[in-house]
Amino acid sequence: MERAALGDKAAELAVAVARGERPALARALNLLDDRRPAARQLATDLLARLQSGDFQRDSHLIGMTGPPGAGKSTLSAALIRVWRQRGLGVGVLAVDPSSPLTGGALLGDRLRMQTSDTDEGVFVRSLACRGEFGGLSAEVWPMSLVMLAACDVVMIETVGVGQREIDVSRMADTTCFVAQPGSGDSVQFLKAGILEVPHVLVVNKEDMGAVARRTLAELGNALGRSHRDGNWQVPVLSTSAANGTGIEALADTLAQHHAILLRDGQLDTRRRSYQAHWIIKRLQQEFGTHGIARLGGENTLAARLVAEHQSLLDQYQAFRQCLLNPTYPEGGNTDHAQS
Amino acid sequence: MERAALGDKAAELAVAVARGERPALARALNLLDDRRPAARQLATDLLARLQSGDFQRDSHLIGMTGPPGAGKSTLSAALIRVWRQRGLGVGVLAVDPSSPLTGGALLGDRLRMQTSDTDEGVFVRSLACRGEFGGLSAEVWPMSLVMLAACDVVMIETVGVGQREIDVSRMADTTCFVAQPGSGDSVQFLKAGILEVPHVLVVNKEDMGAVARRTLAELGNALGRSHRDGNWQVPVLSTSAANGTGIEALADTLAQHHAILLRDGQLDTRRRSYQAHWIIKRLQQEFGTHGIARLGGENTLAARLVAEHQSLLDQYQAFRQCLLNPTYPEGGNTDHAQS
Repeated sequence: MERAALGDKAAELAVAVARGERPALARALNLLDDRRPAARQLATDLLARLQSGDFQRDSHLIGMTGPPGAGKSTLSAALIRVWRQRGLGVGVLAVDPSSPLTGGALLGDRLRMQTSDTDEGVFVRSLACRGEFGGLSAEVWPMSLVMLAACDVVMIETVGVGQREIDVSRMADTTCFVAQPGSGDSVQFLKAGILEVPHVLVVNKEDMGAVARRTLAELGNALGRSHRDGNWQVPVLSTSAANGTGIEALADTLAQHHAILLRDGQLDTRRRSYQAHWIIKRLQQEFGTHGIARLGGENTLAARLVAEHQSLLDQYQAFRQCLLNPTYPEGGNTDHAQS
Repeated sequence: MERAALGDKAAELAVAVARGERPALARALNLLDDRRPAARQLATDLLARLQSGDFQRDSHLIGMTGPPGAGKSTLSAALIRVWRQRGLGVGVLAVDPSSPLTGGALLGDRLRMQTSDTDEGVFVRSLACRGEFGGLSAEVWPMSLVMLAACDVVMIETVGVGQREIDVSRMADTTCFVAQPGSGDSVQFLKAGILEVPHVLVVNKEDMGAVARRTLAELGNALGRSHRDGNWQVPVLSTSAANGTGIEALADTLAQHHAILLRDGQLDTRRRSYQAHWIIKRLQQEFGTHGIARLGGENTLAARLVAEHQSLLDQYQAFRQCLLNPTYPEGGNTDHAQS
């Protein structure tokens, strides 16, 4: 197909996605996952349009992490019901650890079971991790951008503590960690710095009584007064998805964090730095630290990416082409340590 | 210094390391961590000597992983006492998650507190993770090789579940996972395939009674009969480092696994595949998937590395030089997916 025709197609799809049309959203997400050249070009054009001023809206990207067994899926379903009552359009990216045992679609299935399947205002997409052990697959960030154009609230839900949780925290406007009551792990991970400090901490299963209360107190102590992110003091909330308590308060807290980011003009800055992070991570994966050094090093490159205001895949492709060219001038010191 | 003089120095150091002399071992480990060119050359020469036939011995590399709070340090200390009673020389690499809070030397300190500091037969080295979040730092494998030349048993101890635990399982002859009694996390991680199946599973804190017994039963069920590694049926053991029970049995089980690997000729094969894995991982980090493709792709490269029988750093440097040469012929398809 000609480039111009592709451009028309991208424009049409962008409008339909921004209107929140489900088939268009499904198609756009498939497109980002399609490696054929024509699909890739269309995806690049689509993202360029959706990231342009025309489709800007103050959507909220929320990362939901925590160990298995903490009741995340039930809590997410309860949150979604609250958002729907408030008239918000909701998108969910459920990122499962890929596993031969679960087939990797557990989270999305659980969520679908617990929310109304016929509600047009909730869009759920399951993504396996595809063997990228310990990290989120590359598609998650571009897919989030597409969903943000279509929905008021987008939630990335994932399981576990480690690289995946770190990746989510470098992607979401607001990170919410759901701790397991009774297990000291979350507290220990926090104390040891293995767990990045989230914006909101939740102990679900309030119905477990004393055990949940103890975990709540321990998390509060572990955080202390020192854990702040700008003007934000990290709250530790208690919910019971089973009894439906605390969910409204959690939704309010998440919205409050979003409002502060918007008020302080941090949302845009944050998303642009996340975009730079995504691009550098992809380039690093394909061309290594040596490639990043050829582009002037990580800091220089990040500064350039943040300053440029281009769309995600356009920026990525431009720098990728530089590195595929062996005569591209070396931008930095390439005499790396053997480590 | 001239290359010949460096060679003499390496030979001298190799002999002293193999004799188990503590200052020599300490110096060799520092050398692997020193990025200055002369040190790097000496380290390469040293490793080439230690990996040559002259210094081969049937040492055992054991990886000890598990969540924080499972009592790993106490258990390790108890194991070390048993090994010492059996007359074995012991080396420990304690790999801590780097954390601004702990400074990253907690494990080694804990261990030193619990073992005799004056025992010449135990050598402990602490290593922080140095910001390589979720993974072991590159030095761990070369340092293990040096320690294996000096000690009968070498233990790599680390905290957490995720990339670090995966890295240990791709390095150690025998991986031992210490589960936390009462927390369902280990069971859930195993079931979900987030945790690689270790060769030996231990529930420490037998003294916790019913809680520990329940975890033991759950782990046994989660493993089922299906988890075998060659001729090895993964055992689930119960210990109490506090009461000293089960430690001899654990030491026996670990030794048994080692004996089976030696008997079946798997130890050498396994270590060579680990060496290839280490080299590919380093090259991938510096030159990306594009670089690996230039060397013919991961599988071809792994096969070459395993077939070549050269020492670790010699092999690594040779392939690294190829990739630093922009005119090195492309070995494979470099038209990578955009992700």
